[in-house]
Amino acid sequence: MDLGTTIGCILGSALIVLAIAIGGLDKLIIFWDMPSVLIVFGGAIASVMIAYPMKTVLKTLNVTKMTFVNKEHSPIDAIMQIVSLAETARRDGLLALENRMEEISDPFLAGGIRMAVDGMSPEVVESIMNTEIDAINGRHNSGKGLIANYGKYCPAFGMIGTLIGLVLMLADLDPATIGQGMAVALLTTLYGAVASNLFLLPMADKLGFLNDDELLVMDITLKGVIAIQAGENPRVIKQKLMTYITPNERPEDEEAAV
Amino acid sequence: MDLGTTIGCILGSALIVLAIAIGGLDKLIIFWDMPSVLIVFGGAIASVMIAYPMKTVLKTLNVTKMTFVNKEHSPIDAIMQIVSLAETARRDGLLALENRMEEISDPFLAGGIRMAVDGMSPEVVESIMNTEIDAINGRHNSGKGLIANYGKYCPAFGMIGTLIGLVLMLADLDPATIGQGMAVALLTTLYGAVASNLFLLPMADKLGFLNDDELLVMDITLKGVIAIQAGENPRVIKQKLMTYITPNERPEDEEAAV
Amino acid sequence: MDLGTTIGCILGSALIVLAIAIGGLDKLIIFWDMPSVLIVFGGAIASVMIAYPMKTVLKTLNVTKMTFVNKEHSPIDAIMQIVSLAETARRDGLLALENRMEEISDPFLAGGIRMAVDGMSPEVVESIMNTEIDAINGRHNSGKGLIANYGKYCPAFGMIGTLIGLVLMLADLDPATIGQGMAVALLTTLYGAVASNLFLLPMADKLGFLNDDELLVMDITLKGVIAIQAGENPRVIKQKLMTYITPNERPEDEEAAV
Amino acid sequence: MDLGTTIGCILGSALIVLAIAIGGLDKLIIFWDMPSVLIVFGGAIASVMIAYPMKTVLKTLNVTKMTFVNKEHSPIDAIMQIVSLAETARRDGLLALENRMEEISDPFLAGGIRMAVDGMSPEVVESIMNTEIDAINGRHNSGKGLIANYGKYCPAFGMIGTLIGLVLMLADLDPATIGQGMAVALLTTLYGAVASNLFLLPMADKLGFLNDDELLVMDITLKGVIAIQAGENPRVIKQKLMTYITPNERPEDEEAAV
Amino acid sequence: MDLGTTIGCILGSALIVLAIAIGGLDKLIIFWDMPSVLIVFGGAIASVMIAYPMKTVLKTLNVTKMTFVNKEHSPIDAIMQIVSLAETARRDGLLALENRMEEISDPFLAGGIRMAVDGMSPEVVESIMNTEIDAINGRHNSGKGLIANYGKYCPAFGMIGTLIGLVLMLADLDPATIGQGMAVALLTTLYGAVASNLFLLPMADKLGFLNDDELLVMDITLKGVIAIQAGENPRVIKQKLMTYITPNERPEDEEAAV
Repeated sequence: MDLGTTIGCILGSALIVLAIAIGGLDKLIIFWDMPSVLIVFGGAIASVMIAYPMKTVLKTLNVTKMTFVNKEHSPIDAIMQIVSLAETARRDGLLALENRMEEISDPFLAGGIRMAVDGMSPEVVESIMNTEIDAINGRHNSGKGLIANYGKYCPAFGMIGTLIGLVLMLADLDPATIGQGMAVALLTTLYGAVASNLFLLPMADKLGFLNDDELLVMDITLKGVIAIQAGENPRVIKQKLMTYITPNERPEDEEAAV
Repeated sequence: MDLGTTIGCILGSALIVLAIAIGGLDKLIIFWDMPSVLIVFGGAIASVMIAYPMKTVLKTLNVTKMTFVNKEHSPIDAIMQIVSLAETARRDGLLALENRMEEISDPFLAGGIRMAVDGMSPEVVESIMNTEIDAINGRHNSGKGLIANYGKYCPAFGMIGTLIGLVLMLADLDPATIGQGMAVALLTTLYGAVASNLFLLPMADKLGFLNDDELLVMDITLKGVIAIQAGENPRVIKQKLMTYITPNERPEDEEAAV
Repeated sequence: MDLGTTIGCILGSALIVLAIAIGGLDKLIIFWDMPSVLIVFGGAIASVMIAYPMKTVLKTLNVTKMTFVNKEHSPIDAIMQIVSLAETARRDGLLALENRMEEISDPFLAGGIRMAVDGMSPEVVESIMNTEIDAINGRHNSGKGLIANYGKYCPAFGMIGTLIGLVLMLADLDPATIGQGMAVALLTTLYGAVASNLFLLPMADKLGFLNDDELLVMDITLKGVIAIQAGENPRVIKQKLMTYITPNERPEDEEAAV
Repeated sequence: MDLGTTIGCILGSALIVLAIAIGGLDKLIIFWDMPSVLIVFGGAIASVMIAYPMKTVLKTLNVTKMTFVNKEHSPIDAIMQIVSLAETARRDGLLALENRMEEISDPFLAGGIRMAVDGMSPEVVESIMNTEIDAINGRHNSGKGLIANYGKYCPAFGMIGTLIGLVLMLADLDPATIGQGMAVALLTTLYGAVASNLFLLPMADKLGFLNDDELLVMDITLKGVIAIQAGENPRVIKQKLMTYITPNERPEDEEAAV
Repeated sequence: MDLGTTIGCILGSALIVLAIAIGGLDKLIIFWDMPSVLIVFGGAIASVMIAYPMKTVLKTLNVTKMTFVNKEHSPIDAIMQIVSLAETARRDGLLALENRMEEISDPFLAGGIRMAVDGMSPEVVESIMNTEIDAINGRHNSGKGLIANYGKYCPAFGMIGTLIGLVLMLADLDPATIGQGMAVALLTTLYGAVASNLFLLPMADKLGFLNDDELLVMDITLKGVIAIQAGENPRVIKQKLMTYITPNERPEDEEAAV
């Protein structure tokens, strides 16, 4: 699990609070304004709802969670399990994999093996698994895109909020309150800038990296299932799949064995 | 039908009205200025008329409507109908499809089947259907592009309006009205920002997603018509076309059947 | 001929004049400042002369005119003429096209037929016609690029003019004239924004659409000449070339005939 | 030689001087500030030295000169010389080209012919000439990129200079000098904007066009050398190479001859 | 080693210090504000930690160091060593390379030769070496991307800091301190602009150039190892690999020899 998102969020928030509170803790209250919160975050949600299909919007909270709590996708573990399955298939036939189905925790690998055991043609297995990879990739990308778009609309609504505040203040110029009016007007721009640059745009980037990791393991799994179905030698399968991993990420003894 | 556009438009507008009216409902009137409306929206229309061919401009209202009222394009339904047609063609010959023409509601599928029944060569059928797909895609993309361009020109004319207002105000500086002059000048920038970020840019994105959905069904239809014409086994056709759909979108019993 | 450019230019200009004159026609004079005109439009011309080869700059006025007065490129008419020529070639031999040369008004088609009649090898004919298509495309693209660049430099020189105005005003601060100084300084920014957003950037887009239309007809012509030279059946040529056109743009009787 | 760069630089500079001097020639002195010059142009040089390898930085002055004083690369002349060499090779054998080496002024063509005469295999000749083309292209592109980057950093250091000026002025607010302080602070922004938009970005574009011209001639030369080495008929070589040139750029008699 | 980064950093910093200190060395102290430093650089670090996987963040200091202290990657030296190894392999067999392993300082070349000596199949050797190249490239690109992103977030946090400073100042308007408040508020924008434009963005560019140099040598090494394993003639290997280098970078005598 990558703790970067959690640490980054805490560090960034703490620094901003610190920068404000350095002149006195009572200053913090100046920076809270409920209508400003509504216009920036609510407005950006409205834009995103117009831009994205409803089902993508609903899945987003889940996607955001992934940047905090993500399970590691280990290509080494995937290769080890595929090689072990290949050994069983080599020794006892493809149907013997039936008995090992429940020890497979990755549903993508399980699905692939099941199709192979069920005797589907290799072309169809490959095509179905590729569709699944494309679908996961598409889902992740639209999740990432939604967060990035939300990060683009927040500063826009920050500017809209500031413009509304300025018009209200200017239409009723009063030297006594002009400073406070401006201060409140600027808050929406500040909210938008922080939301976008500290949270949303970086999270969208992180989702991209997590997606890359997951797709690598899925690619390895697809190649592995095809190789098992073709009855290839487990040693050869291992050698082939290991080329997906850089030498210094390979387990010591593995590298020797290759 | 995706209600996101409708909900988003209402939510966003309500939030902006709320943000203005929080200091009193009478403030709302400050934010209405007819010349500002004309320069922002009229000016952006003028730019779009220069940029796009006349026929594309005229079709735009229709395209915008699609983001509110869009018919679902279900790939499952398309596959089911194609498989059913394939069964008829397998059993009673390609010409038997003649009798089922009127139950086909999708004009793209109907056109493809008609060409097959009329005995046109598969290459020509594929080429004509591909041209049609490209044309639909091109039409959608230029519609999407026009909305996105309109969303780009609105803030530009917002800035132009503000500059005109500032020059007018500065050329005749009067401390008593400077505030109101500035307020009115800023309105065009506000109009442009809201039109672009709350409505136009998100709608252009939504049009892209709707286009993707429609093209997927058209791709499936094209592959299906070619397969029917080639006299392929309906079960094989179904299996092939189902690979276009991700497993968790497939009907339960279908997945088992595959 | 597409009247959009003309209508858009008039509409946009009228709206801007209206927005200025709403407070009195005498305000219009405030918005005219000769040195500002020189620095924005002259400066941008200087930049474009540095950026583009001299010959491209000289051809630009011509290119701009195309956005107002453009001849329609009808793919249907092109196909009809090619099919008619193909019939002559089929019936009376390739050399018989010699007699029909003067009725061909499109110089690209005429050049292609001439080369075919002169007995040049099909590969050379295709290669020369492709070079011509690439050259037209390149010429249009550099014309479009030049207009788009002019549209990029105008706001830049608008900003430069405003900066010069501000420095002059600030170096000699006089409360009595500060407003007018600022007003004049802002004019260059206004000029640059209007020139760019109302005229130049949209015109560059329109040039792109006109180019697409012309290239489509040239592609069809190239395919047609090759087919005529190969002695293909006119009916087959027509069917092939018609696939370049979307069904609802085809003439009614043509579609039936296909 | 393209005089556009020279004319554009003079025209643009004259217009800016004019815009300043219109209120009196004594105003010109306000616009000169040595520290501002240093921070904008020196700072941008520092950034470029960090960004680019030292050898690329050192070659830049040379590259910039090319936008003023560039030798024409005529594809027609190149083709004529290649055809003439091909005739010699056809008539008297490849080795006879030895005697014509000194009349070849283009070192790229000379190098190619030398390798052919020396009997290197056509694959190696093509590979070496392609590496040379890639190297020239790479060198030009990094020269162009450096100028474009310099044009990007100038406005950035303009803004940095203005910020420094503003901080100095604000930290020691004195109503009597505030105007002059602001005026001087704005000069760096002005310098950056002029340097970037009038000189650097357009020059980078011009370098791109000059590169395209040179690469076209090199491509023609490569194809010509290969054809000479293969002993092709000079007439066929000419016909092939002429397809690189658009008809209306071909010499009158040549077009007839083709 | 490229000294450009070191010289550029010193030159740029000196110019900025000079621009500040020109009005008196005591002005320098105005430009130091600890909370501003924290919010700009700490905030940008927080964003980068959210955006990038933890392991990439940790490797960054190392990557940045590379822009100052980089070892030259000489393609000529690499080719010379490969040719020398090829001669040994030709004369005494592939296994004789065993004895020359320790004189190979480049671990990538050593790894490739080791695999060849160990008798792995050429396809696997090529695949493993390609994976290694992709991995190095990916590692460099994510290092470069991180620096570029840090360079993007610094100005963003500069703006956030300025907004916080403005809100604090405006909420408590005091004519006596307004200037100093503004001055301090602007410092974060200045920090962000300097960090981004003088250091981070140029360094990201330099990393790209260093990566290109290293990948060129790795490509040459890969081709060389494959050729040695295939038992190719050392002279032919040299000729082939030399085509990767432009003529004027080749050693004088080498060019003659080719």
